[in-house]
Amino acid sequence: MTSPENLDSFHAVIPAGGAGTRLWPLSRASRPKFLLDLDGSGRSLLQQTWDRLNDLVPAERIHVVTGAAHAAAIQEQLPELTSLFVEPSPRDSMPAIGLAAAVIGAAHPDAIIGSFAADHIIDDQVSFAEAIGQAVCVARSGLVTTVGITPTGPSTAFGYIQSGERLAVEGAESACAVTSFVEKPDAATATAYVASGAYSWNGGMFVTRTDVLLGHLARLQPGLHEGLSRIAAAWAAPERQDVLDATWPALTKIAIDHAIAEPVALEGGMAVVPGEFTWDDVGDFAALQDVGAASSPETIWVDAGGLAISEDGTTIAVVGLDDVIVVRTDDALLVVARDHAQQVKSVVAELKRRGRDDLV
Amino acid sequence: MTSPENLDSFHAVIPAGGAGTRLWPLSRASRPKFLLDLDGSGRSLLQQTWDRLNDLVPAERIHVVTGAAHAAAIQEQLPELTSLFVEPSPRDSMPAIGLAAAVIGAAHPDAIIGSFAADHIIDDQVSFAEAIGQAVCVARSGLVTTVGITPTGPSTAFGYIQSGERLAVEGAESACAVTSFVEKPDAATATAYVASGAYSWNGGMFVTRTDVLLGHLARLQPGLHEGLSRIAAAWAAPERQDVLDATWPALTKIAIDHAIAEPVALEGGMAVVPGEFTWDDVGDFAALQDVGAASSPETIWVDAGGLAISEDGTTIAVVGLDDVIVVRTDDALLVVARDHAQQVKSVVAELKRRGRDDLV
Repeated sequence: MTSPENLDSFHAVIPAGGAGTRLWPLSRASRPKFLLDLDGSGRSLLQQTWDRLNDLVPAERIHVVTGAAHAAAIQEQLPELTSLFVEPSPRDSMPAIGLAAAVIGAAHPDAIIGSFAADHIIDDQVSFAEAIGQAVCVARSGLVTTVGITPTGPSTAFGYIQSGERLAVEGAESACAVTSFVEKPDAATATAYVASGAYSWNGGMFVTRTDVLLGHLARLQPGLHEGLSRIAAAWAAPERQDVLDATWPALTKIAIDHAIAEPVALEGGMAVVPGEFTWDDVGDFAALQDVGAASSPETIWVDAGGLAISEDGTTIAVVGLDDVIVVRTDDALLVVARDHAQQVKSVVAELKRRGRDDLV
Repeated sequence: MTSPENLDSFHAVIPAGGAGTRLWPLSRASRPKFLLDLDGSGRSLLQQTWDRLNDLVPAERIHVVTGAAHAAAIQEQLPELTSLFVEPSPRDSMPAIGLAAAVIGAAHPDAIIGSFAADHIIDDQVSFAEAIGQAVCVARSGLVTTVGITPTGPSTAFGYIQSGERLAVEGAESACAVTSFVEKPDAATATAYVASGAYSWNGGMFVTRTDVLLGHLARLQPGLHEGLSRIAAAWAAPERQDVLDATWPALTKIAIDHAIAEPVALEGGMAVVPGEFTWDDVGDFAALQDVGAASSPETIWVDAGGLAISEDGTTIAVVGLDDVIVVRTDDALLVVARDHAQQVKSVVAELKRRGRDDLV
């Protein structure tokens, strides 16, 4: 079990990015998924992420990294937030997490950081805390550690983590080495993965000592490491913004999965601890329905069923259609068969092609 | 062929009623189907009906019967209209047509009236004129005459007219006696009807001498006849409105089909002439699609097809659904499988049950 002292040097980093195009028209470039209360809980996905982490560490050890467009909205949603990193432009997750690691590590050389997406849903805080506690123990030993979510079925919507030999880390008896990370599989492969017991879902959570992460980065992405080091060195100085603006645009645009997790796993430097909680990345409207999003109460169903969200409060009637998802906003309307939920991104692509940037 | 003189004593009557609940949310109690430009022609169904009849008779011989709620809108849509009968309350089609017959007959004892629904679509004006010309010839001989529309397929959405023996009426060589009127059949029966060649669609058009109609009414619905006679006698007098208000509410509420057409057919007093034109009563959204209603041009279809009408101009996206009909207004939204188009009336019933009179 995790002792509270175990988390004394733990910092949480929340990269808040990604529009969530498969949740159009609810989610927009100007109103991304993480800012939305998608499950009707009264808290946005970002706020839920904050609550989950603030249960483990004080507010001053929670850091958010985001783009300039969303900084104000985030600060408004998270009034207790004291550490907001604002990226001049989106360079994917590695520069975002790397910057936070470099700045936090400079101030706290023994810091262990955990990175958590801003737009996922997790149920069962006790299991989540248990997993993070174990991950911090393993990370302290020098491994980059991820949380492998125990699959509830052979999903083809998520990437998987293949576990290898059991590690002997005190305080993390279930930790294993990571053999490999695999992309979203087809249905047969997913079924085989789940049956084997050796695969878990990749929820994109990474827990690591800052010096370990930056060491891997120096070796695997030296240009990126050099740029981040330069920015971090200027962070407390008056020229912070100048250095950031001059350096950031040239940083390699790469996800932490490709920059660190996959190559380090092959070197034997990645560990996985089990996450026994309910988790979803709410990637599309089918997932949104699965996490319990409710239809607008005024909806009229006649020989029909599914999910109907009326954001502008008007009455929706659905007749003779099963497994349909209807989303009405004041400026747009989506009607999608549940089994085509992934294709909603094609609508956003088409709107961009037509120059309807006002709608995306 | 019809000679123009044949129509010299012909008056057209348009009963304009019926909300068209299966076309909700386009059609509303306050904005009934006949006032709508449903096919994108630029003219409402009522205006199209007017145009079709005004091609045969001058404006002063076209009469509209409607409820008080729609009188102003009708007068606005039909600026040339000089004869508008305003019913104090809806009593179905027989009192409406009977009142017009009594008033017209009093002024023009030789008048032949034809009654035409305000909310049907007809293509091919030449064939329509030919059918009406024949019907007037037959009606002059003393038969109540209907137009039997040549079926284009075994529709289960319409009533049918069973033709009997050929009549020998000069100017109407194709006229037959009506054996019976039959309600909307099931698919097998409809197929047998169409295969037999003896059945045509009932488009609700009735052409008759006023004295013949009123004579049948006196015999079959004496109370109704008596009430209508009392109103007609006061029509040109100052007490018209008082008599109308006192008499109208007690009139039998009945359709002309049940009051006259069906019983008179059994007596051998009904005739049918063929209508070779394209006709539709646009009874539901499937019919609306069939008559060529177009989707809003901004609609985005991804692996999908059907009809999408955005009355408020917002963009509709449909993904992964075939044969779906989507109708968005500023205050409501309908999503219906094409093969469930008839069930839209259940939505209106449910809205009434919930007290949402603002939406019906």
